[in-house]
Amino acid sequence: MKRMDLLSELVVENQTKMVLLVIDGLGGLPGEDGKTELEAALTPNFDKLATKGETGLLQMVDPGITPGSGPGHLALFGYDPLEFRIGRGILEALGVGAQVESQDVCARGNFATLSPDDVVLDRRAGRISAERNKELISFLSENIKEIRGVKVRLYSGEEHRFVVVFSGDGLSEEVEDADPQKNGLPMKWAAATSSRGNLTATIANEFIKRVRDLLINEKQANGCLLRGFSQAPHMPLLPQLYKIKPVAIANYPMYKGIARLVGMDVVDAGQNLEGLFETLPSKWDEYDFFYVHVKYTDSYGEDGNYDAKKEVIEKVGSLMPKVLELNPDVLVITSDHSTPCQLKNHSWHPVPVLLFSPFTRPGSCSTFGERDCATGLLGVMPAYHLMGLMLAHGLRLSKYGA
Amino acid sequence: MKRMDLLSELVVENQTKMVLLVIDGLGGLPGEDGKTELEAALTPNFDKLATKGETGLLQMVDPGITPGSGPGHLALFGYDPLEFRIGRGILEALGVGAQVESQDVCARGNFATLSPDDVVLDRRAGRISAERNKELISFLSENIKEIRGVKVRLYSGEEHRFVVVFSGDGLSEEVEDADPQKNGLPMKWAAATSSRGNLTATIANEFIKRVRDLLINEKQANGCLLRGFSQAPHMPLLPQLYKIKPVAIANYPMYKGIARLVGMDVVDAGQNLEGLFETLPSKWDEYDFFYVHVKYTDSYGEDGNYDAKKEVIEKVGSLMPKVLELNPDVLVITSDHSTPCQLKNHSWHPVPVLLFSPFTRPGSCSTFGERDCATGLLGVMPAYHLMGLMLAHGLRLSKYGA
Repeated sequence: MKRMDLLSELVVENQTKMVLLVIDGLGGLPGEDGKTELEAALTPNFDKLATKGETGLLQMVDPGITPGSGPGHLALFGYDPLEFRIGRGILEALGVGAQVESQDVCARGNFATLSPDDVVLDRRAGRISAERNKELISFLSENIKEIRGVKVRLYSGEEHRFVVVFSGDGLSEEVEDADPQKNGLPMKWAAATSSRGNLTATIANEFIKRVRDLLINEKQANGCLLRGFSQAPHMPLLPQLYKIKPVAIANYPMYKGIARLVGMDVVDAGQNLEGLFETLPSKWDEYDFFYVHVKYTDSYGEDGNYDAKKEVIEKVGSLMPKVLELNPDVLVITSDHSTPCQLKNHSWHPVPVLLFSPFTRPGSCSTFGERDCATGLLGVMPAYHLMGLMLAHGLRLSKYGA
Repeated sequence: MKRMDLLSELVVENQTKMVLLVIDGLGGLPGEDGKTELEAALTPNFDKLATKGETGLLQMVDPGITPGSGPGHLALFGYDPLEFRIGRGILEALGVGAQVESQDVCARGNFATLSPDDVVLDRRAGRISAERNKELISFLSENIKEIRGVKVRLYSGEEHRFVVVFSGDGLSEEVEDADPQKNGLPMKWAAATSSRGNLTATIANEFIKRVRDLLINEKQANGCLLRGFSQAPHMPLLPQLYKIKPVAIANYPMYKGIARLVGMDVVDAGQNLEGLFETLPSKWDEYDFFYVHVKYTDSYGEDGNYDAKKEVIEKVGSLMPKVLELNPDVLVITSDHSTPCQLKNHSWHPVPVLLFSPFTRPGSCSTFGERDCATGLLGVMPAYHLMGLMLAHGLRLSKYGA
């Protein structure tokens, strides 16, 4: 029996409040002084929680596997990341703030410069400015709202990039890129890779022609290319699976988007760290599961900026009283993957996790750090097991068997 | 999704060098002084590596399951040993140095004494000497090279034992033993257990008759029996799976044979421990994955010779500088199973493992020993997860999902 189905079978309603604080890319590797970013950070609030709660390490996907943000978050939300996958196109769409529902197909777009006979002269339209991009997207959005009953939504990206989302019945991601991939080649039109993709290919090509007609007088961005057609995965949603009312409190569009895909509500939490911790109390009565996402640890990890990553961790630690004064029944502090400054990239290293509730068996952990967590009572566990543990500590799972 | 397929999907080429040092039967049980063979051994080089690297215990097959050399090694090479199996016949064949390819069928042979009317008088032909065995095999090899287009290769074993390998199209292991199992019974001929085995049974019986004709004037070894027909398993090979160029550096035929089955090159490493560590540097530029196999720990374990096993461990430890001066990117020191002197046999006890690379989170381990490893950051993990971890530390796996 699948774990998810078992949890779903056992779940009961309750009024308990659960907080999942995800500090993106939190896990690290030892720096010059032999300590990881988290170990080096002064975090008395985390340490106190580590002493009173249970700690461990989360194996996000499988040993040695480096997770992208998609699989990392799906695992934290209780989905086996090897069973459920989010396509790259969907994630990019979510990253620019696109709303993607389960039947939608989205694609990554490029503004491009085409010759009068449709030879692609510049796949990036001279890398037009973000401002110009916004103007064009705004103009196109007004003029292309629907094609053959399929709704069209457009989102600006950086430079020449944008995202298009098609919404309607009978769409499919089984469509090849409408992109010759190289300058100087004739336009390549979208083509279905199976009969299921026929409608989408037709819509995509009609979209490209409409864009071409509308932008015919542009010097640089007088056409467009589409690639990476992808569909949101069909997955059971958290509210139905676990009888919870979840909300995402995040600064960045991608994480809001992933949360929406699993059935969370999404609220505006501003553009900075403090915003997250101000938003949380304001939504306390309305929801029972709070996913709070801190991005900046990952960003500094990718920059290889050890001190800045450490400082963000300290900052988050210092904001913990704002969470604790709400008296959550279950509080989990963890991450979606490691981003060691040494690697300037996501990595495969397991992720520290701290679980705090009235029903823990505190171990000998006295700090919140990778190696102290490794001695914790949760052990090294698959990340997608965490959700069940949160529900259990929230007294939301009935007994299995009589 | 199967882990092996996932790794294969994520694997990228790189120039990193990986060493897998397998100290056969390394794991042990406490002796009179309360320490295992490994714990008692003075191994400052191992201990230094344990301090800088990550340690843990490998569960070779499953808790409580004692692995043979086949499953133990398959697991270390990344194959789930419950999914992939090597038949006993194949292992015996590999043990006498037979080269077995994926279509071949091999069988264990006995020289036997038969009466003129084919009653088996002595299934072991009076346990003839290894020398006589070699003479007979040499004579038979010259006279039976092929039967009905199927190639025949013969390998001497100990006393009355030999191995025959049939190579050709349409062969199958679905054949019952050509052996009455008891003296005094009439010869029992090979019989197919399914129609797929028909050709092999025919070839086997014709082989036995040709041997009988050729040895008709022998007093003792005037015939032969065949049993344990088995075929090399169909398995994906390491070079294709993981884009690596692997080589086996081993003293004993069986381990060279297992390595060949998974697609490794095999080189001559002489007949002793020192030979292994002299061969390694000589092949350093040619390969990127080095499987080095030390046999003698297992042999002494099976003898119950605690001190001798301990001394071999110390010897291997003292040879580590020869490995370290090559600056491997990833170095793993472990075993294919435990062989505690107390049991004089393979055992089910998990096996110590030490992984050393620039990307480890060193734990509190200060020695390389079973119980210190049990506190290591790798935890207790299935042995077949190790290969993915080696590839990760060798920076040979791309990110899973965006």
